[in-house]
Parts: sequence; structure tokens; C-alpha cells
Amino acid sequence: MASTPLKSRPSSGQVALSRERSLVPVGMATILPHAAKQVRHLEEQLLSRINRWGYDEIILPTFEYLDVLAPSLEPELIDHCYQFVDRTTGRTLLLRPDATAQIARTVAMGFTGVALPLRLSYRTSVFRYQMEHAGRGREIFQVGAELIGLDDVTSDSEVIDLMIECLQTIGLQSFKVSLGHVGFIKGLLVRSGLSAQGRKLAEQAVAKKDLPRLEEVLSRERISKRAARAIREAPELYGQEEVLARGRVLAASDPDLLAPLERLAQVYQLLCTAGHKDSLLLDLGEFRGFNYYDGIVFDVFAEGMGAELGGGGRYDHLISRFGRPLPSTGFGLDVDRLFRTVAFPEEGVTAARVDYLVAAPPRAARRLASVAAQLRRIGARVVRQTMKGSDATLVSAAATAGLAQQATTVVVVGAPGVGPDAVIVVASLAAQRSSLRSGTASRLSRKMGLADLLAGARRSGRKIKERS
Amino acid sequence: MASTPLKSRPSSGQVALSRERSLVPVGMATILPHAAKQVRHLEEQLLSRINRWGYDEIILPTFEYLDVLAPSLEPELIDHCYQFVDRTTGRTLLLRPDATAQIARTVAMGFTGVALPLRLSYRTSVFRYQMEHAGRGREIFQVGAELIGLDDVTSDSEVIDLMIECLQTIGLQSFKVSLGHVGFIKGLLVRSGLSAQGRKLAEQAVAKKDLPRLEEVLSRERISKRAARAIREAPELYGQEEVLARGRVLAASDPDLLAPLERLAQVYQLLCTAGHKDSLLLDLGEFRGFNYYDGIVFDVFAEGMGAELGGGGRYDHLISRFGRPLPSTGFGLDVDRLFRTVAFPEEGVTAARVDYLVAAPPRAARRLASVAAQLRRIGARVVRQTMKGSDATLVSAAATAGLAQQATTVVVVGAPGVGPDAVIVVASLAAQRSSLRSGTASRLSRKMGLADLLAGARRSGRKIKERS
Repeated sequence: MASTPLKSRPSSGQVALSRERSLVPVGMATILPHAAKQVRHLEEQLLSRINRWGYDEIILPTFEYLDVLAPSLEPELIDHCYQFVDRTTGRTLLLRPDATAQIARTVAMGFTGVALPLRLSYRTSVFRYQMEHAGRGREIFQVGAELIGLDDVTSDSEVIDLMIECLQTIGLQSFKVSLGHVGFIKGLLVRSGLSAQGRKLAEQAVAKKDLPRLEEVLSRERISKRAARAIREAPELYGQEEVLARGRVLAASDPDLLAPLERLAQVYQLLCTAGHKDSLLLDLGEFRGFNYYDGIVFDVFAEGMGAELGGGGRYDHLISRFGRPLPSTGFGLDVDRLFRTVAFPEEGVTAARVDYLVAAPPRAARRLASVAAQLRRIGARVVRQTMKGSDATLVSAAATAGLAQQATTVVVVGAPGVGPDAVIVVASLAAQRSSLRSGTASRLSRKMGLADLLAGARRSGRKIKERS
Repeated sequence: MASTPLKSRPSSGQVALSRERSLVPVGMATILPHAAKQVRHLEEQLLSRINRWGYDEIILPTFEYLDVLAPSLEPELIDHCYQFVDRTTGRTLLLRPDATAQIARTVAMGFTGVALPLRLSYRTSVFRYQMEHAGRGREIFQVGAELIGLDDVTSDSEVIDLMIECLQTIGLQSFKVSLGHVGFIKGLLVRSGLSAQGRKLAEQAVAKKDLPRLEEVLSRERISKRAARAIREAPELYGQEEVLARGRVLAASDPDLLAPLERLAQVYQLLCTAGHKDSLLLDLGEFRGFNYYDGIVFDVFAEGMGAELGGGGRYDHLISRFGRPLPSTGFGLDVDRLFRTVAFPEEGVTAARVDYLVAAPPRAARRLASVAAQLRRIGARVVRQTMKGSDATLVSAAATAGLAQQATTVVVVGAPGVGPDAVIVVASLAAQRSSLRSGTASRLSRKMGLADLLAGARRSGRKIKERS
């Protein structure tokens, strides 16, 4: 599954991660170290939580043959793929536009064994060409999970339960999971007597929440006013249990409409029991952009952010397009959008990037390496640097380098008049920034035995370990 | 930096990771869960070690404009890139063939700030089209590090020291780092009086260790026998210090040849002092395939494996091709080849994939979710499953599912005759495989208070945590 690219919902909150607009392709961005650290942290938290539920990660190839993957992709999505020709075979390759389709292919072909159910997870990029986009809109980082081989309400609720736990794990404060069943709208459309073409157009309009377009499609064919009214009403039916009650009225005893409502009611109840009622919104118009969904579907929005953060649903007939019928469900989350939604603790300008900068004149390069290695063994994050220049300026040059590298502490090895078992230390560097700038570094430094330095580092080791 | 694609060394030990040859493009492969877990573990170990040395991860876009990246890529590499047209601009895009080139561009354009030195790391795939390849040869997972803004022997040795520590961290037993300086061969070629074209061809032959080809190139032009002999000898000069002594003889007091040898000697000494002598092999013919290297260069081989595991070197003039002169060095490792080289502890067929499978009949779905959640909160890896079928067969169906899912323990919730505060437990499932198959599961199961189950899980919690 993937965040839906085809809805017309506004994509707000897109903050550019760098300024490289004209030099890297639109929609691609370099994620610089500070942001990269947070993105990786998010990924780790998500995957660790998903792992706890018994899902195993699978790593998928970045591109595939179009003819192989095509059965799983609707034509509109294929139009948005990056395609190129395989020089060996002349066949068309495409950059992965969707992870669920690749997993379906992999499972259908038997590579994951025969034991069911399968629980698989992934972290990957998907690639979609889109006309207008800011930020990293064309290379989309995703983390997701697929539960394959089960067709019951417990599995429907499992993936939603897990997705909500993921969002809570990363500290997302307020979000809503919009929960529906594609069978309800589909049933209304079938019952109305619309042509196959009319149904398809109406489905697309509902998926995009484009009510004027839906109106236009309905007015083209002669269907009963009652049927048209029900179709028009469904996309606006969202809320709590009352939505189900109204849905049952529209169903008017039609078993093809009551069955999806009953399934939806059961999944909703299970999720409420799991304590997620406040995060849920029933939505009878929920109809995701991917046409492989054929049961319970859902997507998740953060309050105040127009673009969806992820979603998923049941795709019982997707894997069978590759020759192996297997009921399945899953979800995916857009890591980049999560990154922009989650509030990270502010790191001040004085936050340390490394624990120690160890400096020495070139003649002491060997001792430099040795002291740095000893500090690392204790668990510290250490950069080392040789310093040219006179002995007199060594300590202040080291302190300046330490400030530039955002080190907590500067250690000078091989300074004049300091024996082989001692070092010069400038501690709490950031706090002394102004003194250091005025060239009084030597007054802030003190000589210390190497053994004492290491003992001190060992004492604060646990703290360092917790942070890294 | 990247593993060199252009040498003719045999690429042995390439184990296909799946059987999808005809359905996924040659050189692309799906990494299935068992292998994926080990690959991710390798990546984590490498990045954690690199982080300890003060390197910050940067995330690079998967494709770039050819015209922007071209200054960093030699024509032969560009021929091996996957290229396609950007629909927005008509410009040519290429899938990242090399991470170092992208980082050079990013740094030159100022996105990483002005504080130097910069220490950057990456984990990424690079893409190279090659004629014959087994396994994942065209999508290459790399982890690497770049040290930007320093031009001294300490930085030369730092990246090699760090690379060796990385290899030791992942438990690679026997490997050799082949260490050279491109300036030596280049100096010999200049001194010989070969034409510019002749020098270029000779460099390519040396890079590929293709001595017959080198012979052919040398025989085309009229150069002195002494010069030709020196050029022929250099690629075969590898070993320990004696190589430097012989190199000084060939240099014959030429400062342009002595300078690279002196630099090489200093870096070699620093690395020996750091305890790496047994891993080092001086190689005056070391000449990596990327033409941006212009100083110390190195690559790493495991004993018994023909293909290189990684390498790197100094590229003082690469970043200036993008307009900002900055001396730099770095290394990269091929994660896929490391994965195939490192011995992982064998997991027996009885190894557990999850700690608990919690099963229940559909009517007890809520309690099922609750028990599973409580076990996860303690730190266990838990899958949950509803079981249809008669009450009588519930426990044996659960045990069968537990075996299929490779669970250590099966917990049945909501079994007939068991109160709401109790569960049925089948422990040590794998050890009882044969009894379970003979249908005696119910005899191996025992009733247990839910509180006792959780207390037991909590006691073994630390062990579980250590493993995951």
C-alpha cells in the first residue's frame, strides 16, 4: 500500500528539505544530516514496533519489468511511473511505484514459502512522477506491513491496530484514521443500474472526493432518484456509530450492502475495544485510489495537515492476479510526511554533535589515534584532528576546531611540556564560546592525566550511550 | 567511493538470493526475510561504528540530472548508468551510479554548511548496468564514509583505520587491504614520455591489472627500455616495507615519484601503529577504476573471494569539479558482498521466529488482542490469530499454527472450560514437534493463570530483549 497519489486533497505542510531545486530533479531532495538522523530514528521506531508484532522485513528490488508488475497496477498509476528500457532484453523497466504490488508478486511466485499467514514488513522508496510537487514528492519513503493469508475481522483490525500503535510510538499527538469498506459504495453503484463505465467513473469521483464530478457522472445515465440520492449521500457519511445506522437504512435490506456494513461494524468494535475509538472516524465514502482494495480500507490524517500520512486496506484479489489467490491486508506510512508532522525535541544551537574532539600536532599522530580509540572503546563519539601551527597556538586552535565540530570536550595530545601520560582538556566548550572567541582558551584549559580523562569518560559513558 | 566495476577480476562467491531470474531484471533480487534480517544487522553495525567516529549520515536522492553529475563521472561509468528522460524538463536523469560523486556535488553547492572538516556517511544503493552478472549485481548496497576538507596523512589513515574497524566489527576474519598511491604509477608514466593517450590507456590497463594489455600499450610508442621496465614492474610490486624500498630504486631520486612513496610510507606506518599491519598489503600497482582518485587509494579483499568488498581513496580534485576545491578522502563497502562473506551463526530449523502465538476462537477476539498486547508490552514478539473449528480441536489447531509460525510458545485464549483469567499454554513447541504431529497436543498443554503467564514472560523479558 501507499499514500494515494491521485486524490485532489491539498498537499500542505510540504517543507523543502534543501534548497537544491534547480540542480536536482523536482521532487527529489537531499536529506541533510540533522534531518537524516531524525528520519532514520523514525524508521527504526516504526520497524521495531512492527517487528514486535511478528512481521519480518523483506527487501525488494528498486526496479522491475513493467510486464511482470502490470497486473497489479491500474493504468493511471502506470502513467505516473518512471520507465526506461532494459538494455539486455529490450523490455520496459519501471522504478517501483508501490511496495504492496511487489510483495504480492513475490508471494504469488512462492519465494516466501508456503506457511501462512505471512507477516511481512518493508522500508523503501517508491517513485511516482507527478506534475506539481514540492519537497521529496517523487521519491517517497515508506514503511509498511502486509498480513497475507487471513480473511477475518481480526486480521482487518490487526493491521489498523498496529498502524495506530506505530503512530503513537513516534509521538504523533492527534490523528484520525478514516475507516470504510469499498463494498458499500460499490454495492450502491451496482444496485443503481449504472453502466460499467458509469460505475468506474463514479468510483474515481468518490476516490477523489470530487462531488461535483460525481453529480455529473450520475446525471449522464437514467437511474432512479432514490439510487442517485443514496450514492450522493454515501461520501458524506462519516462520524461514529450513527454512520452505520444510516448506512443500514440506505442498504434497505440488500445483503450485498449489509455485509460490508456488518464487517465494518465488527472491525470498528474490535478497534474501539483496543482503545482506539478517539482515533477513528467511520467514513462510508472511504475509497482509496488503488483499485486493488476490495474490503476494509482506511487512511490516516494528522489534524492540520491536508495530505494523508498513510493508509491501507484489504486486497483479497491482488495476489491472485499473479496466480495465487490469497486474502490479504496491510498498511503503509509516508515517512517523509510523518517527519514533517511529528514534533521533534528542539536541539539548541549549543547541542553537541560529538563528545570529544581529540587534537594533536602531526608529530603526535600515533598518540592521537590511540587516545581517540580508547575514548571510543568506552562508548564516546570522537573525532580526531591533527593541527598545524605553533605550539603556542595549539590549544586555542583545537578549541576553535572543537567549536566548529560542535564537540562537548576538546582533548589536546602532545602539547609542549605535557608528558606522554597527560593531556590538555577544554571542557563544556559550548558554554565557553565567548571566552574562547576572545582568545582566552588557554586559561579555560587544564592539564589532566590520561587515566583520569578515561575514568571520567567511563563515568559519563552510560549517559552517552543512552543518547546515541 | 564504490566497489570498482571495471576490473576484470573474477566475481566469485556470488550466491543468488532468490530464484526469480526470469521475472525480475538480471542483477536485481528480492532479499527474503531471513537474509534481510542479516543484511540490516550488518548495515546497523557498520553505521553505528562509523557514527562513533563522528560521521553523520546524509540521505541522497535516487536519481539526478546527468548534466549536473557528469563532471564527476568518467565516460566509461556514464555508459554503465541507467538513464531516462525527465518528463518535466526533457533533461536526462540517471540512477545514482556512485555515492561519492553525489556527496561531492552536495558539498560543493554548500548545502552541508561551511564548517570543515566534514565527516559524512551514507547507506544507499548504486545502480550500474553490466553485461554479465549473477545475484544483485546491478543494484549494489553500499555503506560508506567521506572525510572532507583535510589533506594530511592522519585523514588518509583515519578512513582506512575506520574501514578496518568496520570489517572487524562485523566479524570478518581474514581480509587484506591493498594500499597504494596513484601518483606513483602516474609519475612513472609521465617520466616515460608516453603520449597523453598512451598514458590514459596504460592507466586503464593497470587499473584492470591487465598486464598483456599494458605490454601492448607500451610497445606502441618509443619509450626507453628502462622506463618501460619500471612501468611493467610497478603493478607487480606488492608486499610489506620492501615494496617501498624497491619503489625508491625505481623512483631514482625523482621528487614526483618519491613524494607519493613518502606519503604512502607515512600512512602505512600510522596504520601499523594502530595495529593493522597484518591486514595491510602495500601495492604500487593499486589504481582504482574511478578516475577521480588522486592520492592514497585502497581496496579490500577477503581471502578466498575474488571480488573486492570495498575500498576508497583520496579525491582532492573531485569536489572542485563542482566549483569548490576541497581535499577529501573516503571509503565504501559493498554490503551484499560482505553479507556473502561474513559467517553468520547458523540458526537451526528449530529456531523461534516469534516468542508467542496467541490464538483464540473468533468469539474471544477482544481478549485475544488484549493478551497479545500485554505480552508485547513486556517486550515479547507476538503474533495473534483467530481459529475457526470446534472447541475440541482448538488447542491442536493452535499448536499446528504455532509450529508453522515458528513460535516458541502457544497461548490459547477463550478455550472451553477456561475462565477469563486463565489461558492454555503449550510451551517449548519446537522440541515437541513430533508429539504435536501425532495429535497429542492437548496432553502437552496446561492451564495457567494469565497473571502467571505474564510474570513468566516478564522474567524471560531481558533474554528476549537481548535477542531482538
